[in-house]
Amino acid sequence: MKLSLPAQSILLPSPVLIIGTYSSDGIPNIMNAAWGGIVSSQPPCISVSLREATLTYHNIIRAEVFTVNIPSEKYVKEADFVGLVSGKNCDKFKETRLTPEKSKLVNAPIVKEFPYALECKLVRQVDLGRHTMFIGEIVGMVADNDVLNPNQLPDIEKVRPILWGSFGSMAYYNIGVKLGNAFSVGNELIKKSVRI
Amino acid sequence: MKLSLPAQSILLPSPVLIIGTYSSDGIPNIMNAAWGGIVSSQPPCISVSLREATLTYHNIIRAEVFTVNIPSEKYVKEADFVGLVSGKNCDKFKETRLTPEKSKLVNAPIVKEFPYALECKLVRQVDLGRHTMFIGEIVGMVADNDVLNPNQLPDIEKVRPILWGSFGSMAYYNIGVKLGNAFSVGNELIKKSVRI
Repeated sequence: MKLSLPAQSILLPSPVLIIGTYSSDGIPNIMNAAWGGIVSSQPPCISVSLREATLTYHNIIRAEVFTVNIPSEKYVKEADFVGLVSGKNCDKFKETRLTPEKSKLVNAPIVKEFPYALECKLVRQVDLGRHTMFIGEIVGMVADNDVLNPNQLPDIEKVRPILWGSFGSMAYYNIGVKLGNAFSVGNELIKKSVRI
Repeated sequence: MKLSLPAQSILLPSPVLIIGTYSSDGIPNIMNAAWGGIVSSQPPCISVSLREATLTYHNIIRAEVFTVNIPSEKYVKEADFVGLVSGKNCDKFKETRLTPEKSKLVNAPIVKEFPYALECKLVRQVDLGRHTMFIGEIVGMVADNDVLNPNQLPDIEKVRPILWGSFGSMAYYNIGVKLGNAFSVGNELIKKSVRI
């Protein structure tokens, strides 16, 4: 039975984005954001939506750059921690014992222990209410050699990213098994429809 | 070893969004989109980025409404199929034998067989190059009773959504196991840092 329910910002799955910026005093900061996604492929762009209350919001407005770091599942505690505390009163790299490495392309830190990161330059800012959406052009990518496929692209089976179950579960999950190849598994229906 | 690589629009995981619209002749259409995500919680908003070449792009511009349907893993073939063919020359509901049901809140179809859908009104359009980002305010949600948790929110463990592994794997995956509770599992690091 289908039920009509109140509007909710529930997308399944949601990603776990660890946003890297420098504070005005040069201290590297990371925060956990779930509101975001790819918004364009040419040029490659990603959106991240943040509340004004966060330190990262102000860091991005000032520096106009940020990184999006993708944690692997073994860093679920660290990923959650950097969403529980504010960089205004905590050095999150120090507390998590994660290592900041400055991006070569943008003035923002990369999390050394995480498998890959997108290096972004702010190109658009859209105020939407409680959240402001920052659109960053992805100008480069930094990845561990051992999570890449033969085409030098991050392989999800090696990255082992975290997903967030949103408000319905309030929990993190890992990826499961492969269901089929994209732009391929649906071909079975095309053939079937042709046969009919 | 960390490698610097060309910019890529690779976010792991990426969602599988099945966008529902009506064509100008009233035929319900669905397409598979991976570029999107929640962009605001108050008001609840979601973004979906589409190329002008798609029928859905023109349907959204004309009607200013759309649905975002979340397929469960058992519909991976159907989800892939509706990204392989265009609604310009194929009735995708008919071919997949999925059932369109008109949303009560917006003039757009919902996929009856999928566990839940977000009903959206277009509030912003941002041209970004190859893709145009459509921001929809989520005005309601329709869900199967049996995928809801006690708070009437879609539970990821019951929805069993599909995730896309992006260009590095070109494959779909299901969700795996729970890694920990959000806003909770990171507390262990807070306690540790206090102890030190």
